[in-house]
Amino acid sequence: MNETINALEKMFHPKAVAVIGAPRTRPSGWPGIFGCIKDYGFPGRLYPVNPGADEVEGVRAWPNLRSLPEPVDLVVISLPAPAVPEALRDCAASGNKNIHIFSAGFKETGEEEGLRLHGEIENIARREGLRVIGPNCMGIHVPSKGFVTWVGASKKSGPVAFVSQSGGHSQDFTSIANRLELYFSKVISYGNALTIDSTDLLEYLARDPETEIITMYLEGVKDGRRLLRLVSDITRIKPVIILKAGLTEAGTRAVASHTGSLAGGEKIWKAFFRATGAVSAVNLDDMAYLAMAFRCLEGTEGLRTAVIGHGGGIAVAAADACSAAGLEMPQLNRDTQRKLRGWIPSGGNIIRNPVDAVPVFRNMDLFQEVLRTVTADPAIDMMIISLSLDWLFDIDEGIQIEKVAEYLAGPARQCMNGKPFVVSWRSYRNDPRIFKVGEKMESRLLKAKIPVYRNFEQAAGSLARWAKFHLFQKSRMEQEQPEEESLHRACSGCR
Amino acid sequence: MNETINALEKMFHPKAVAVIGAPRTRPSGWPGIFGCIKDYGFPGRLYPVNPGADEVEGVRAWPNLRSLPEPVDLVVISLPAPAVPEALRDCAASGNKNIHIFSAGFKETGEEEGLRLHGEIENIARREGLRVIGPNCMGIHVPSKGFVTWVGASKKSGPVAFVSQSGGHSQDFTSIANRLELYFSKVISYGNALTIDSTDLLEYLARDPETEIITMYLEGVKDGRRLLRLVSDITRIKPVIILKAGLTEAGTRAVASHTGSLAGGEKIWKAFFRATGAVSAVNLDDMAYLAMAFRCLEGTEGLRTAVIGHGGGIAVAAADACSAAGLEMPQLNRDTQRKLRGWIPSGGNIIRNPVDAVPVFRNMDLFQEVLRTVTADPAIDMMIISLSLDWLFDIDEGIQIEKVAEYLAGPARQCMNGKPFVVSWRSYRNDPRIFKVGEKMESRLLKAKIPVYRNFEQAAGSLARWAKFHLFQKSRMEQEQPEEESLHRACSGCR
Repeated sequence: MNETINALEKMFHPKAVAVIGAPRTRPSGWPGIFGCIKDYGFPGRLYPVNPGADEVEGVRAWPNLRSLPEPVDLVVISLPAPAVPEALRDCAASGNKNIHIFSAGFKETGEEEGLRLHGEIENIARREGLRVIGPNCMGIHVPSKGFVTWVGASKKSGPVAFVSQSGGHSQDFTSIANRLELYFSKVISYGNALTIDSTDLLEYLARDPETEIITMYLEGVKDGRRLLRLVSDITRIKPVIILKAGLTEAGTRAVASHTGSLAGGEKIWKAFFRATGAVSAVNLDDMAYLAMAFRCLEGTEGLRTAVIGHGGGIAVAAADACSAAGLEMPQLNRDTQRKLRGWIPSGGNIIRNPVDAVPVFRNMDLFQEVLRTVTADPAIDMMIISLSLDWLFDIDEGIQIEKVAEYLAGPARQCMNGKPFVVSWRSYRNDPRIFKVGEKMESRLLKAKIPVYRNFEQAAGSLARWAKFHLFQKSRMEQEQPEEESLHRACSGCR
Repeated sequence: MNETINALEKMFHPKAVAVIGAPRTRPSGWPGIFGCIKDYGFPGRLYPVNPGADEVEGVRAWPNLRSLPEPVDLVVISLPAPAVPEALRDCAASGNKNIHIFSAGFKETGEEEGLRLHGEIENIARREGLRVIGPNCMGIHVPSKGFVTWVGASKKSGPVAFVSQSGGHSQDFTSIANRLELYFSKVISYGNALTIDSTDLLEYLARDPETEIITMYLEGVKDGRRLLRLVSDITRIKPVIILKAGLTEAGTRAVASHTGSLAGGEKIWKAFFRATGAVSAVNLDDMAYLAMAFRCLEGTEGLRTAVIGHGGGIAVAAADACSAAGLEMPQLNRDTQRKLRGWIPSGGNIIRNPVDAVPVFRNMDLFQEVLRTVTADPAIDMMIISLSLDWLFDIDEGIQIEKVAEYLAGPARQCMNGKPFVVSWRSYRNDPRIFKVGEKMESRLLKAKIPVYRNFEQAAGSLARWAKFHLFQKSRMEQEQPEEESLHRACSGCR
């Protein structure tokens, strides 16, 4: 293990934490970093550092790090930018080298004072061998260790890691993901990346046993070659989903103003995704919906997808969406079509693929036969079930929707011939009753680990990228070295 | 006025309507066509035709059209497909030529019986000069005349027309639109287009004084040249927003199964949109959000857009989304930046464009100064205001959100230097209180005719296409013939 990895191991499992810049009284509106750590219930030893206070929120305060009774695993600096260099000198003098700088106002401002301060803290960090997360970031969240530096974080932990160059995104993405029953191993908002960059974090997460899926929000990268090698290796063992910002001209400019990073061109990044197998997300919602597919689905033999739903216009939209997402949508075999036609009358129904068949959703026995028959078709690898809750609600005010949800969450899997499936639902009417039944169904399906989407394009897009990753990974596995060796490379071979 | 236009005028303003296939007892679940018309409160004379009933739902029934006391403005046929030819012969024999065939089971099935029946009804319609909307469609909805043939339709009327080849879409799109305070002049679901095609409907709507914005869901077109000329003419006077389905291979196949139409290739349609100035929508939500922009916004001098919001990652995403949508995002002038820097500290805030400035949203006076200053910048034509409700909610549990909404809905317009603006909001936390305040804000803004979006990509995409249409229209106006002549051509010159 190299030094940075060792440091991250400590920072991610802190037993003692100091906060420089813990105000005597809690600010209004936002509790401050100290307040956030305390409110979340951090079980370790927490030291507020404030030379002007004897205690902070009932906890004994210390004038500086040198006076603390022990070295800490993590120092969090939450001071105005001009006071940060002095705080770093205190870190160095006290031998506390693992640091998160929350403060903003450095090179991202593009202004003289910010650039000067950036130079100053960079020099101190380099000279003293400090390991810095930040500045200009929210820092670390490790639910399993009861640690967070922001408000509103879930207490649950799970298999997803999030590495983010934006602090706002750390909070927003975890909120979105939690709604989809996705919980986190580690969330790291690392901002301007003074010394610790995304690649260091990736190297750690590659072998973190708590982490099965890696998600990232990237603005810029310092060592592109290292990122390329690292992600190529990690995708052998874990999916890496990346939201790359700043791919347009205006976006590149905004990135420079936000974290002072170089965003890199769109072409380079397209090649990066092709070469590494990393999965490209277009926004936070998209990244969460992708992670949900990775969490729930096991594997697929190919991209050939059947869609079953109700509504002709929606069936056409589904076909367009599948094609646009890169899924294949073959016609069902003649035999399959003949069987379906035996159950589904021709007027107003489509049976070739997409299957648009109103009667199927009224009768669970028929639904089961249709799912069994379609997934038995050798032309089909995967399935999307598309539900119009407005229409289903009109049958009996929601009872049928609950029946469909119960069926899909339970017995359905047994009749799918081992083929993966996802559910997409929609409700356009402004009726809170329908929305409530929809949310209930969603939660039922998520608990059964069935990916559920509110929009067909999102369902098709997620399924396509999940399946392509799976097939990419499988073909590499077959061609290349065994897993152990690649794991070894991912963890140590790419410095 | 040609004959078809005359017929449509009658069908859209019916005083007497006959329904062939009005069952003696109401079916369970769905009230049937007759039930729908009755339930909606049609104020005209309604004749159920059913040879096996004396009365239907308390209304005297008639054995056939020939026995009715008067000719009707519209006959609706709701019978199984095999019974439709006989009903059409009854129409012809009784001199009732304006017909909506609800029934499905014709050429869209691709099966022998359906194709035979299609041939039969086509022959009757041609020989007898019948004007048919359908078959395989939901028909007509004209709120101002109290007429509809489906459930759940709003009673309010408004300036939007919707021409749809899908019946499900007619219902779904109006539901989505109603939520955005958009109401309809006419909604026409025309299915297989036996005699009346989208072009006939467009020709009518071009000069319909009730219709200011035309929206369309198209699967296929019979006379592409006519559509091209017609839409080119209409866009001089009214926006035409088209959701074209079946642009992919799988979509084309689905279109053939749905309405038996030929979808046409993607290249042709791209050229069509370029040539006509029609606005291309990608799905139903997108079309509604576009229509909202057209309803609310007046005009723009160009595409140069400023974004003001809070959250750095979101600011970067906003810049990428604007660029991707085709908006320009210039840096603000030095003068503007200098003024903004006077109010907004540099740490954690961005002022170049996008403007990412947390303090601005806490202080309405500062907000006003910033909006005034940014919109006074000659480098800027339009503005997007991007709100994170999760963050605003934490200030005071929603009071500040209401203040922002009140300000934007009222005084804001006065300080925008006449430049158009839209609002985009987001909430990722699973907190129903935040969502409720968000919905309240949304409704407040919509009532003030300020376009409001739940997703920044949608806001940027709608604004860009609205602005491009506006600029396209303006440049044509300046170059070409005066409006009256083009209106004349739109109404009659393109047969």
